[in-house]
Amino acid sequence: MSKLPEEFIRGVESVVGALGIIGDAERMHSYLSDWRNAYRGEAALIVRPASTEEVASMVRLCNQYQVAVVPQGGNTGLCGGSIPDASGTQVVLSLTRMNRICEVDATNETMTVEAGVILQKVQEAAADAGRLFPLSLGAEGSCTIGGNLATNAGGTAVLRYGNMRDLTLGLEVVLPDGQIWNGLRGLRKDNTGYDLKHLFIGSEGTLGVITAAVLKLYPAVRSVTTAWVALPSADAAVQLIGIIRGLCGDRLTGFELMSRQSVEFVLSHVVGCSDPFAESHPWYVLIELSDTQPDAPLNDLLELGIGEALERGLVSNAVVAGSEAQVAALWALREGISEAQNHEGPSLKHDISVPVSCIPAFIQSTDQRLREQFPGVRIVAYGHVGDGNLHYNISKPVGSDDASFKAQQEAIMHVIYDATAGFQGSISAEHGLGQAKRAAARLYKDPLELELMRTIKLTLDPNSLMNPGKVL
Amino acid sequence: MSKLPEEFIRGVESVVGALGIIGDAERMHSYLSDWRNAYRGEAALIVRPASTEEVASMVRLCNQYQVAVVPQGGNTGLCGGSIPDASGTQVVLSLTRMNRICEVDATNETMTVEAGVILQKVQEAAADAGRLFPLSLGAEGSCTIGGNLATNAGGTAVLRYGNMRDLTLGLEVVLPDGQIWNGLRGLRKDNTGYDLKHLFIGSEGTLGVITAAVLKLYPAVRSVTTAWVALPSADAAVQLIGIIRGLCGDRLTGFELMSRQSVEFVLSHVVGCSDPFAESHPWYVLIELSDTQPDAPLNDLLELGIGEALERGLVSNAVVAGSEAQVAALWALREGISEAQNHEGPSLKHDISVPVSCIPAFIQSTDQRLREQFPGVRIVAYGHVGDGNLHYNISKPVGSDDASFKAQQEAIMHVIYDATAGFQGSISAEHGLGQAKRAAARLYKDPLELELMRTIKLTLDPNSLMNPGKVL
Repeated sequence: MSKLPEEFIRGVESVVGALGIIGDAERMHSYLSDWRNAYRGEAALIVRPASTEEVASMVRLCNQYQVAVVPQGGNTGLCGGSIPDASGTQVVLSLTRMNRICEVDATNETMTVEAGVILQKVQEAAADAGRLFPLSLGAEGSCTIGGNLATNAGGTAVLRYGNMRDLTLGLEVVLPDGQIWNGLRGLRKDNTGYDLKHLFIGSEGTLGVITAAVLKLYPAVRSVTTAWVALPSADAAVQLIGIIRGLCGDRLTGFELMSRQSVEFVLSHVVGCSDPFAESHPWYVLIELSDTQPDAPLNDLLELGIGEALERGLVSNAVVAGSEAQVAALWALREGISEAQNHEGPSLKHDISVPVSCIPAFIQSTDQRLREQFPGVRIVAYGHVGDGNLHYNISKPVGSDDASFKAQQEAIMHVIYDATAGFQGSISAEHGLGQAKRAAARLYKDPLELELMRTIKLTLDPNSLMNPGKVL
Repeated sequence: MSKLPEEFIRGVESVVGALGIIGDAERMHSYLSDWRNAYRGEAALIVRPASTEEVASMVRLCNQYQVAVVPQGGNTGLCGGSIPDASGTQVVLSLTRMNRICEVDATNETMTVEAGVILQKVQEAAADAGRLFPLSLGAEGSCTIGGNLATNAGGTAVLRYGNMRDLTLGLEVVLPDGQIWNGLRGLRKDNTGYDLKHLFIGSEGTLGVITAAVLKLYPAVRSVTTAWVALPSADAAVQLIGIIRGLCGDRLTGFELMSRQSVEFVLSHVVGCSDPFAESHPWYVLIELSDTQPDAPLNDLLELGIGEALERGLVSNAVVAGSEAQVAALWALREGISEAQNHEGPSLKHDISVPVSCIPAFIQSTDQRLREQFPGVRIVAYGHVGDGNLHYNISKPVGSDDASFKAQQEAIMHVIYDATAGFQGSISAEHGLGQAKRAAARLYKDPLELELMRTIKLTLDPNSLMNPGKVL
């Protein structure tokens, strides 16, 4: 049944019981590949502990037998970070049974949860307590808080509320040697030494297993306004966000940029979507304002801002959603891009960030270089422009064959990453490195920074048993 | 002139030149004790490098000769973190000559500065660019950004904008071996491995020398309202902040709690201060709302919130400042506490945090225990209640002698720290550990967490030359 010694298997059984082990090929299947089927591995076992103590015992056992551990949450990652390698000797440690919301403290505006809680459950529990947990992303119905922490998840509300890192006050972590670090503090200020939680957040399971967290909550939002704006250029979008943010401050909670190509793919492939405007425009932004006040005059504010932008020639057309249905229809145009692009054949996806001020120059120069070197490629640029984060994806030229396009993958990636590096940007803004971008990180990150990361990894995990082959 | 070898001194001269060295006792004086004269040390030299390269050369030289380095900014800390020990063999590395604002990118809402820039200069440069740098604290006219980073400074705007850690996007650090890590990225999203900057922020110079940073800016504030509210209890204050934050969201940028005792000290000792109310009340809060909108109806909002609190019996009296002068007068009552307390003889100062929801129980139980065990002590409790952060200071009983009060210092501290620990709090919310709280941290921090900190320290600074005797 397994490539690991019988003794080890019996040890696992004594830790998690028969219910906590999945060993047959059929049931293991969904744990061994990602939802896009981009990565596939093998494992000796899937182990599903029910408590932090069980996780700790498992990690100690794995140390004893020198078995590598691959922590896994909702398995919705995009970089293969929670998929084991092909050896069949690794153990997948699935945290999904640890799905309790332990405490909601509305007065402290905190929630303590186990790592396996689904993000949407956290959002709902916050709403039940009259609060907001602001992390919001496509996979929220199935991703887990542990995975969000391991990858420092981003999404559409980072502009106002920050990344997962910024939404976390405390952590509980099983260290690579099986000790439990209880850092589950719900404190907004604590300056008693090194802030260890930030070492584990975003480390993709390579420094330990996050088992629980204390999350920050916010006041509930009681008014929302959503608008769809057409613009002549990406530069106009960057100027527009300056105007709106200066005017509205923290009321600006969403500012999503989309190229015409992105929207066209959605209009072609996603049923029920329609263009808000009769005419076509090179760029669009979806703007969301929100407020804790019911009946806040957000439309007036937005019209003021867009009015100023119109006068300055930055905006070509704009519509403010007049109903919940219209709001949903506008967001569908944004959220449909990733799926729509899949209908156009193979695509190369990138998740880069540069300073917001460099977005226009990045797009202009990279578009030009790609069109020169790879005639006919279709550039699907969209993203969270307030965070400087672009999903700068490339679809194959119309009529070209898949194989020759895929052969250009590396060369296209290098054009994009070289440009990113030229603007002091990041080759992975919000998806992490996993196994997908590990090699690229070696090329594009500062060697000294990589050396520091390796030194820390070796210090905390000298046997290299925590998610080996990922990140570093 | 110095306890260090002549060769070393000549090496220092060749790195920073004669202008960069202070070796005579008179000029060294102000670098060797803190502004309160609570800590005093000796040093072989004060070295004032003018560039990151000079810092790096100095650190390499100190490694070669095994000389300990004490980084120092504005020397405004409260825990002796930047004061050398008594040996006279350490070198103070003052960053104050590195005081350039390198770049303001208003579109990206970032500013790149050297470590020696005074906080107030950063606030002013942000304002000149139509932006806000929100960190605000008493010492802002003389503290430096490097010191703010080293101690993860807090202050009065943390409730809305977070600690210094949250206001930082990138760092440049000279590592203990003299290598320069350039992490000066102005990115809001970067998930390419371990977030190293968080290891250095708050490490009080024990892991390297922070030489520059990329700071986050915010939209300028264009309306402010300030109110002074009297309350029957600390519990009422915690309920009031819930009402105001739920109503106003991020418009709530200040919520400072003060006991009657704190205010009475100010009224007795600070010239020009007067009680806003004719009658006395057990507790007060100073509330500040702000908005990016000019003429935002903040008074209406505040009155709505206070009105609800009045109906629920949470508020006894309230006044909204009607002029700039009144705003200043209200803040003077808050900001005068620390100085006023010094006029009442020796005082024991504590900077603790607990979950906001635990503030009332903490105050009630700790007040009671102190009054029982140390009859007559005067409890001066005030602080940033929205952050769960109390400056819970103790003045000697009226008429008692200083020496017998000081003899009780340890016992009083343990009552307060035991209570803090009982509420899963922190013994240093915003001041750091420095040399002052190093021993207490050993008692009150999780041993595993201390062990992790020591492991990291040893890995990055194997010769223990970076600010030894601080934090750990």
